[in-house]
Amino acid sequence: MAFIVHKYGGTSMGSTDRIKNVAARVAKWHDAGHRIVVVPSAMSGETNRLIALAKEIMPQPDPRELDMIASTGEQVSVGLLSMALQARGKDAVSYTGWQVGIKTDSAFTKARIQSIDDKRVQADLDAGKIVIITGFQGIDDHGNITTLGRGGSDTSAVAIAAALKADECLIYTDVDGIYTTDPRVVDEARRLSKITFEEMLELASLGSKVLQTRSVEFAGNYRVPTRVLSSLTDPLMPLDEEAKSGTLISFEEESNMEQAVISGIAFQRDEAKITVLGVPDKPGVAFHILGPIADANIEVDMIIQNVSVDGKTDFTFTVSRNEYQRAVAVLEANKEALGFSRLVGDGKVSKVSAVGVGMRSHVGVASQMFRTLSEEGINIMMISTSEIKISVLIDEKYMELAVRALHKAFALEQA
Amino acid sequence: MAFIVHKYGGTSMGSTDRIKNVAARVAKWHDAGHRIVVVPSAMSGETNRLIALAKEIMPQPDPRELDMIASTGEQVSVGLLSMALQARGKDAVSYTGWQVGIKTDSAFTKARIQSIDDKRVQADLDAGKIVIITGFQGIDDHGNITTLGRGGSDTSAVAIAAALKADECLIYTDVDGIYTTDPRVVDEARRLSKITFEEMLELASLGSKVLQTRSVEFAGNYRVPTRVLSSLTDPLMPLDEEAKSGTLISFEEESNMEQAVISGIAFQRDEAKITVLGVPDKPGVAFHILGPIADANIEVDMIIQNVSVDGKTDFTFTVSRNEYQRAVAVLEANKEALGFSRLVGDGKVSKVSAVGVGMRSHVGVASQMFRTLSEEGINIMMISTSEIKISVLIDEKYMELAVRALHKAFALEQA
Repeated sequence: MAFIVHKYGGTSMGSTDRIKNVAARVAKWHDAGHRIVVVPSAMSGETNRLIALAKEIMPQPDPRELDMIASTGEQVSVGLLSMALQARGKDAVSYTGWQVGIKTDSAFTKARIQSIDDKRVQADLDAGKIVIITGFQGIDDHGNITTLGRGGSDTSAVAIAAALKADECLIYTDVDGIYTTDPRVVDEARRLSKITFEEMLELASLGSKVLQTRSVEFAGNYRVPTRVLSSLTDPLMPLDEEAKSGTLISFEEESNMEQAVISGIAFQRDEAKITVLGVPDKPGVAFHILGPIADANIEVDMIIQNVSVDGKTDFTFTVSRNEYQRAVAVLEANKEALGFSRLVGDGKVSKVSAVGVGMRSHVGVASQMFRTLSEEGINIMMISTSEIKISVLIDEKYMELAVRALHKAFALEQA
Repeated sequence: MAFIVHKYGGTSMGSTDRIKNVAARVAKWHDAGHRIVVVPSAMSGETNRLIALAKEIMPQPDPRELDMIASTGEQVSVGLLSMALQARGKDAVSYTGWQVGIKTDSAFTKARIQSIDDKRVQADLDAGKIVIITGFQGIDDHGNITTLGRGGSDTSAVAIAAALKADECLIYTDVDGIYTTDPRVVDEARRLSKITFEEMLELASLGSKVLQTRSVEFAGNYRVPTRVLSSLTDPLMPLDEEAKSGTLISFEEESNMEQAVISGIAFQRDEAKITVLGVPDKPGVAFHILGPIADANIEVDMIIQNVSVDGKTDFTFTVSRNEYQRAVAVLEANKEALGFSRLVGDGKVSKVSAVGVGMRSHVGVASQMFRTLSEEGINIMMISTSEIKISVLIDEKYMELAVRALHKAFALEQA
């Protein structure tokens, strides 16, 4: 007998028929003798519908009131799923975040979980019940309803699994796991049966948008074994088979032993780069350039500053492509204060990254990567590295070619 | 400066444009310096949509889970109305029932309010805020969400007005007040500017379905002056005019002084009567006949038992017409146990009632009523009386004639 938290996304909860399918799957796990807590998302489209209503009233809705409204989607889901389990003869009970003490800070629409009081849930589990808890939401110190931001149900599920000391958190989604790269780009892309949470963190933030980054951080901090698996399989497939499917985000030290050097190739197609030429090289230059960009709520990704020549330097950074024009406008508006000579930019660049904890103990990964790209005639515009990741910025038109070449060079098609 | 509770029904909250209209009206009251609490219903159709979803999952949904789902409609409404007020520059804040301590018993889907903790609301009002509270719902001793049953938002508004010691509760609805009778039946029907709560109670339960009966009971018990008025008027009409519109349900003793003998003629068209003939006249006969009817969830209205002849008696009662066949079937199924000789019934009867507190101090109301019906050639099948009401059961085809004749006989067209 194990203690398992299940999380189901909005698509899995998208209709009453699909909710009945979720109930069949959950019941199967309960029948096998496991303690089960389920965290479902709002029915697909529901949160968008609620936010659209709010925006009809007020284009920039008050965040506290927005959370009051947006949190109802999950409340409906837990009630419906509880009923669907009861209709199968299961003893199920649903709770909102505030009913089981999911305490957050007061950062409405993007609150962070601070603590979870597990007494009520453990008592229900002891009594043999299946417990359904709303994802995406909690309550602050003043009794206000808060939400965790889009995708927050993943984070709720992992946080609940951590607080309740569950053995595993299963995130059911519409993909069947984490791949070495996007199968739409590389035919030989292979599903990883295991990945470390650090690798997952790099992959998630680099665009393999399977799990919300914050939920991976949570899983890492609290060492919650978390598995990403498909909700599109037959709900009645054998449990032992289902339990091994998908990709496990692992925290076991020994998992590094047999670790491949590189686990996956991630990419972000829609990047843009901006170079600020001839900036006076004095303390604070990065802050002075990026301050106005941050004030305009534009997220900056890679940043490079060249060595100084004659007291002047060049400063290059990348932004998401749809923020490109706006970022340029912000800099032009501050041209006098910044004292640069001119701007050059490129709106058609892409980022490709090789990720793997094995990199730590293997030299030569970077040179292998650069050689592979060179052999394909691909010019590297920018390079950025971390302990377990090397990212390069290249011309957009070479992106697929680069991903395929790197996937092959690191032999990722082999298990 | 007064302390006013406003209640708006689902139709008034039916779209974002209508919600903006409600906000304009509420803001007008706040601008005039009043302390304002608003209790809105769910957007029209929303509660039905949620219940339909639940029934797709489970035809007889678990009441606790149903309340979890059904309560979300009002939660969305309070958030949207709060935003609409903020969009007008007002400081507004929304609360769910549990956030402001609306404690109920645990009778899910038909809970009763036990207490309201007003600290948080009074503090907000002291700070000049407009407070919006969900109708229809509360929280039980175990932290479960409860709902008060359909129409419960009226009751919530009156209960909140009572707990907060408001000066008046304004129920905005799609009619402009309480009439001496249905204007669709009698052209001369006149809107009452004032009515006592006892009269309102009789009128509400007799079919003038303007206010939920329980809300009137609450208003009576806690002596909350409650006004029914139209939400279809221009939201920006002069406040002093609006404040006097509609019908005030009054609790002032002196209001009896100038009270008319009869305030209104109520009627219920769709009645049916059943007579059980030749029942052995022994203790418990009423219980034995009506027990199975109650077990089948059929509501009984008028009840008459004839004097006994030769140890046998006849027992007559009325039910809503759409329960007629089912009630007959229930009795036939119990024929042996009940020992009656046969059933006779009539599925085409209507009830007409004259209501008025003035009746208490005026003799001759009943004889005036019977004479009027007699002059019109209308046969009376059953009579039932209370302190402030006389009801008669008549052939359905005479219903409009009886209502018009009585309206005229009691001079209700004159103010």
